[in-house]
Order: sequence, then structure tokens, then C-alpha cells
Amino acid sequence: MQGTDQPLRRDERDISNWDAECDVLIIGFGVAGASAAIEAAAAGARVVVVERAGGPGGTSALSGGLIYLGGGTPIQKACGFEDTAEDMFKYMMAACGPQPDASLIEPYCNESVEHFHWIAKQGVPFKPSFFEGAHEPFTTDDGLTYSGSEHVHPFNEIAQPAPRGHIPQQVSGKGGLLMKHLIESAQSAGIETRLNSRCDALVVASDDSVVGAVISNPDAPGGSTTLRARGGVVLAAGGFIFNREMVHHYAPALERCKYKVGTENDDGLGIRLGLAVGAEAIRMETGDISLVLFPPNKLRQGLFVNQFGQRYLNEDAYMGRCGEYTLYHQEGHAYLIVDDQIYERPEMFPVEVVAVGETVAELEGELGMPTGQLQQTLSYYNEHAARGEDPLFRKGAHYVKPLDTPPFAAMDLRAENTGYSAFTLGGLRIDAQARVQTASGEAIPGLFAAGRTTSGVPKQGYSSGMSIGDGSFFGRRAGRNAAAKS
Amino acid sequence: MQGTDQPLRRDERDISNWDAECDVLIIGFGVAGASAAIEAAAAGARVVVVERAGGPGGTSALSGGLIYLGGGTPIQKACGFEDTAEDMFKYMMAACGPQPDASLIEPYCNESVEHFHWIAKQGVPFKPSFFEGAHEPFTTDDGLTYSGSEHVHPFNEIAQPAPRGHIPQQVSGKGGLLMKHLIESAQSAGIETRLNSRCDALVVASDDSVVGAVISNPDAPGGSTTLRARGGVVLAAGGFIFNREMVHHYAPALERCKYKVGTENDDGLGIRLGLAVGAEAIRMETGDISLVLFPPNKLRQGLFVNQFGQRYLNEDAYMGRCGEYTLYHQEGHAYLIVDDQIYERPEMFPVEVVAVGETVAELEGELGMPTGQLQQTLSYYNEHAARGEDPLFRKGAHYVKPLDTPPFAAMDLRAENTGYSAFTLGGLRIDAQARVQTASGEAIPGLFAAGRTTSGVPKQGYSSGMSIGDGSFFGRRAGRNAAAKS
Repeated sequence: MQGTDQPLRRDERDISNWDAECDVLIIGFGVAGASAAIEAAAAGARVVVVERAGGPGGTSALSGGLIYLGGGTPIQKACGFEDTAEDMFKYMMAACGPQPDASLIEPYCNESVEHFHWIAKQGVPFKPSFFEGAHEPFTTDDGLTYSGSEHVHPFNEIAQPAPRGHIPQQVSGKGGLLMKHLIESAQSAGIETRLNSRCDALVVASDDSVVGAVISNPDAPGGSTTLRARGGVVLAAGGFIFNREMVHHYAPALERCKYKVGTENDDGLGIRLGLAVGAEAIRMETGDISLVLFPPNKLRQGLFVNQFGQRYLNEDAYMGRCGEYTLYHQEGHAYLIVDDQIYERPEMFPVEVVAVGETVAELEGELGMPTGQLQQTLSYYNEHAARGEDPLFRKGAHYVKPLDTPPFAAMDLRAENTGYSAFTLGGLRIDAQARVQTASGEAIPGLFAAGRTTSGVPKQGYSSGMSIGDGSFFGRRAGRNAAAKS
Repeated sequence: MQGTDQPLRRDERDISNWDAECDVLIIGFGVAGASAAIEAAAAGARVVVVERAGGPGGTSALSGGLIYLGGGTPIQKACGFEDTAEDMFKYMMAACGPQPDASLIEPYCNESVEHFHWIAKQGVPFKPSFFEGAHEPFTTDDGLTYSGSEHVHPFNEIAQPAPRGHIPQQVSGKGGLLMKHLIESAQSAGIETRLNSRCDALVVASDDSVVGAVISNPDAPGGSTTLRARGGVVLAAGGFIFNREMVHHYAPALERCKYKVGTENDDGLGIRLGLAVGAEAIRMETGDISLVLFPPNKLRQGLFVNQFGQRYLNEDAYMGRCGEYTLYHQEGHAYLIVDDQIYERPEMFPVEVVAVGETVAELEGELGMPTGQLQQTLSYYNEHAARGEDPLFRKGAHYVKPLDTPPFAAMDLRAENTGYSAFTLGGLRIDAQARVQTASGEAIPGLFAAGRTTSGVPKQGYSSGMSIGDGSFFGRRAGRNAAAKS
């Protein structure tokens, strides 16, 4: 944790004087904070953005830069894909559960095309080209890709599939490119930025409204500043994947993931600041858990099996779904069964072969699985695969071929051994206006939040681009609403 | 929610005068509150217990009265069972996960025999007889039973099994009998009880310590009382299963359970009071989810299968494990497959037969399952069952017999259709001294908690008796520690 346990809440009556004033104070300069800053400044507010790191950008700048957008964006149209807000809503309500929040997802979908235009207006370029690969385009500058499970079972029967992962045009450093434009846009609007600065406490008036904050620069001890925010404070300080104690107590499944996605400032400070002034933090157990196994896509012809030798998921599901299903539902104990014909080394992270057999029976024995179950799994699969069918989990036909070329092998998908990557999805509860909520479902006056400091549109069932997506979308609303109060 | 959103935290400097004083103020008069009261009074403290209902007892009085105790209690010994604190610890660490809290479980096991004697000393009778049935003894006055999965796979290989469900000696109303003795014991120690009274807010001093509370009687509007607590406040106000909004936002899986276990006062007020003064609430997604399907135990010869026709759990697991695995891991979509020879009507709750077939193939078709999978599941099971074996999930041999007498039937275990019962297990984080913790892992001075207001020994993997068990165990510590501060 953060060492000393200074109170994160201060009473206004204990603040002898305000060192400075602004209209909107934004904590964190990632995608949510930048979007809030741009909109608040556009509304005429005097904006201060406080960032703990030595420069702006946050985890967003290190990310793949994908933004989950749809409903018929110009990029979707240019690539020949039809999409509607209704199909986007249906997909998200089916995928982002259990119990996704329709009150957030509905405006997110309905205003997604407008949101695309807003992002493009900040100068972020998108190439109108579709990336065919079933993984994120790490090596091209294409502008659109499938970044979820829209086109595979069961979602392709729930909603008309469309790719919604929009990617800034650059071969590498896409997240950095996105943030460069947003930061420049915010700065050219005249906002004030305070780097190397930490929000030590929120200041609360006698009516429980948030009226400012105490800011310090850890490199300049003793010098804390009181900053009054007439319109309100926006918490946009990221998630808590780098806070070991919080992960342990709130989201223990994520502890088992080898790779943590974020910066050291994703330590939950924004969430804790909210909690300290009466906010509710919800769905704190949830996270994106990506099992990065593909490319090569040829491996999707293999079979995910659990420790008992049973299949449990269509292997063409998106990496977020593969990770969640394996870790949450199969106790993080699974294998990918391959034959000699399809085996290739994964490109992104190492995945070890832990057992090899000239026969499936031999492989099953090597893995210590119940006698006969894996053999039966393979025999059932192969019988149907010979006809191009997968009645059990309905994997896409192009990946369905019998596995019958020895030797057979098991690739290790056990959580502790393989490249699961994780970040947190739980956080402060907000309403559709990005107002932070109490446990009673009432807004805390003067307090707004967005991005991974909140529990937003992805509760689980993560599709790439949803964090940059809801961070920017609700960040804008937070900035506008805080400005309107000032 | 509770209607108005009055602040649950008040500053001491805003309290113009204290209407009354005590050493230890206890919020809630269930098993945790009663145990705290007895111990605080025994330490010489002046104790006030506040209870929202018209009489003491809470959910504990309506419960089955089981107490999870072990390590070699006199009842275990009299019934011929050996047990050690080590085996109890091993079982609980394996069963109460993921990430059970060893710092709570260790003292709970090490001092369990002492805790038994303490409960018996309050006058609670236990008959030294063992109930053989694999469900709670609703119709006998036996004193000991298996109330978890200690004796079945995989736990019987992890720790030496012993029954640990200790039951007050009475055929019906066992929970009421338990509470009668604890309440009488507390009252005879001279505590003050305030019924029909609600804790509206905790009062916090300038150093963030809890120094009292504001108490009101909703039936006597306007008349709120300020009560100073020199030693501290103990939150023992139950869980939140009857707070729809909290369940929706924190533990959505529990929404799907038809039966809620608790009283209307299990609305999370204790947790919200803690949150309001800086406490951390953890594992709020967790709950006990019991699938009450047995007796008759003969049905355990059937097979749990998921929507794909695959087995997923040994059918002799305890009802809490059956419920959790079905709801969390199988999306609440499962069936019990039986044949004509074993079918009987469940005794406790209705469970409908949703499909019947003269052959397994016909049954599979009726259920809309993938062609051939259920047939393969049965054929694999029957092949091994003919030798009394269950290699896949290692159900106890006495329940393993081939299912081969048509007609075959599927009993409906889908969450919305069947008798799942639920209560919440998430709550305030405490340490082994029942001190309420902040997010930084520091104790809030003057604030203690126990029972289902806390996240205690059962994180998941509920075995019956663990709530009465940890509520009384840590309730005692809360009372003692609060008294010691006064």
C-alpha cells in the first residue's frame, strides 16, 4: 500500500485557506482525464489536471490504443461493415456481464458515432482499412479489427456482428499516438497541468459535497496545496492492478495472472479517494483476464480442455473470454490439445508443451487425467469435425478439422505457468452523467469519475477498446457536467 | 434502499451533547452481537445493545443453529470422531476460497474447542449423537453432522475428514434455542438492550476514531439519541441479502436465487456504516448459494450435467458447493439426470422434471443438447460405474451405480426455476482481533465488527455453521477488545 494512512477526506472547515482555485479539478491525465479536460475547457471552465507521473498519458499511453466504437462509424462503413447502435447494445449487454449496466451501455452505444467524430476531431487518425487477423494488429497500421467475440458463438447469434475495435493509425505506439493528440488538444485549450503531483485528500463541505482537494508533490515534501474546485472534482486516476493488497482482498483471481497491465500509479488511489467521501465501489472482483495464446491462429484448431479432459469453450473466442473462462470457471487449470499438423509456437508469449503422446491415451496418461475422458473428448470432436461441425461449442467451421496426426501434445494453460494478463474493472459506481454514486444511489455533489477508477461498461467479458472507450466517453461527460456546475 | 440518504457518519464536534454513555455499544443482537455483549460485560464493561427488530435474535434465531466447530470437541469425541485443529485448518483453507484468509481461519481452528466450551457454558445443549444423513438433521435432535464436503472428493484427500456441524439439541427451532441461551446469558450479565432502534450514524472524532453513535427509534420519529461509547462500537448487524440494490451492484449472481436467507434487516446497514467511516468492504460478490436438492440421498446417484451435457461436479458434494458450482461455473444452467430406478421427489423444495426419454438420445434431444454429448457422458459414467468407480469426479462408491433403467429424466436445476437459497458473505474487512480495517490495512480506532457484517472465514465454499461460527467467535473478540479500550 501507500505507506502512511493519512485520511483521504478533509473537512472544508479545517482548510484555513485555499491556495488556489479552479472550476474543474481533474485527478489523472490518462484518456479519461484528458477527455474531461478538453470538454470542461470547451465549456469555458478553468481546468487543472493533476498527474502523479512526470508526464501525462497514464496507462492509456502504454495501451494498444484501441477504442471500442460502433453503430456505423465512418471507418466501419469504409471497410464495408454495417453496424447499428442496437446491435452494438445487444452485443454489449450479452458480453459485458453478468449484470451489465444498461444505463451506461445505452448512451455509450447510441452516441458512439458522435464519439468517434469527437476523437477524430482531436486529431487522432484512423486508416479506413480492416485487419483480418483474429488478434490485435500489432504489426500494421490498420484502423479496424474485431476486438471481441462479436463474430463467434454465441454472440454471432445474439447480434449482427461487426468489428468495433478502432485503432489509431500507427504501426507501434498506438496508445501513445492517441494520447499525444488528446493531450495536445487539452493543452491548447489552456488547461493547467501539474505533474509529479498527488491528490492526498478530497475536501468535503458540511453538506457532503466535494469542493476541492489537497495536492502534494512527493518530491517536494511538506509543500501541500489546497485547491478549490468550484464545479467539482473528476477522479480519472486508473484502476488498482498495481495495488497488491487491494487485488488480494477484492479480486483474488487476478493475483494469479503473471502480467499486470498498467503503471505503478494504478494503485487504486482514485477509488480510495471516492470511498473516503462516501462513494460506493462495486464489482471490485472483476477484471480483464486475457489469455494471449494466438497468433498463430492455426492453434485455434486445437481444443481447450480442463483438468478433467473436457472441453469448455469455443477456441475462436476472444482472448479476454478465453482468459476469464479458464481462470474463473475452470480454476485456471486447462490445456490446449494439439496434433502434429497444427502445432506452432505462439508468437506473443511462451506457452510450454507439458505432455506429448503418440496416442491420445498416452497423452491423457501423461497429464494424469481421468482414464478415457480426453480420448472420448477427442473422439467426439473428431467424429463431428470430419463433417466440419462442432455441435458442442460451435467454433467457426474454418477452425474445425479432426485432430488425428500424431504425436499429440498438451500446451500448458495453467494460470501460474502461462501469459495471462490482467487489469481491474471494478471501481466507483457512476451514473450515466459520470456522477459518483453513494450506496443509496444518490450522486455525491461535486464528484465525477470515469475510466478504470469506475466500474464502467465492461463488468466482465472484456472486449479490447472498452476501457479507452468508456474512459473517454464518460470522461467527456464528467468534464462537461463539472464545468456546468461551476 | 433505505429511502433517505442521511449521512451515516457524524463528526463529534457537531454533537452538542451526549444523551447517554456506555463502554461498549453493539449494533445488532444476533449471534455476533450477543457474543460480543457477553464477553464485554464479563470484562466489566457497561454494554448497550441496539437492535432494529422488536426482539433480539436476528437471522441467527431463524437459522438452523449449526455451529462449525472442531479440532476435537467433546461432541466429536463422544461420537467417535477424531479431529485436530490442523485438519480443520487444512479443510477450511481448501474449501473457503479462493484466497481464504488464513489470519482469521487459524485462530478460529486453534481455539475451536475452547469456543465450544464457551458456547456450552452459556447453556446451549448439544446431544452427543451423530446424524448419519448427508443433509442437516431437520427432524432429529442429534448434536453432530457433516455440514460441509469434508468427507467427499477432493477434500477427503486434503484433510482427514471429521463432521464439524454442531447442533443445539432440539428437533425444531434450533437457531432459536441457541439464541435464547445467548440472549439470556447477555441479559443476566446486566447489559442494556434497546429494541426497535436503528443506528443512524457513527460518530467520529477528529483523529478518525469511532466514539459513539446516533440511535433512533423509527416508530418514535424525531427522537434520536446520541450515545457515547468509551471503548468502541461493535457492528454486528448482519449481511445485505435483503438490500436489492446492494445485491444488484455487488453480488449479481445472488439475484438469481429464489430464496433469500435472512430478515429484512439484513439490508447492509452495518456494512454501510463501516464504509462511511473509512472501512473497507471486501469480497462483496461472494455468497452462500445452496442448492437444496437432497434428501432423498438416492438422487445423488444421478448426474449433474451442464447445458452441454457434460458432468461438472461430484454429486455427493455439500449443497453449498453444488449451488456455487452450478451458479458461478455453469451459468446457473444445469440438470440432474436420473433413471427410473433412482427417481424420487425431493423432500425440501420442488424440483421439476423438464424432460423424459425412453433413451438417453431421446432425453438429449428433448433438452436441446448437442447431439451425442449426453449419451457419451452417460456411457462413460456407466462403463466405470459398473465397477463402482467414478474416475471423473470420484463420487463416493455407495452412490455410484449405472443409470440404465428407462425412462430417463432430467430434473431442472436452472437457477430461476429451482430452490437455490442465498445469503451474502462479503462485508467489512476485519483482522483477527475483529478490528475493522481501512483500505490500507490499518485498524479504525474504536470500531469492531463480526458476523455477516464482515467478510469472515467463509469467502466462498460455504459449509453450514460457519456464519454462526465466525459470528460468535469474532463477536467475542470484538466485545473483549472494545471493553479493554474503555
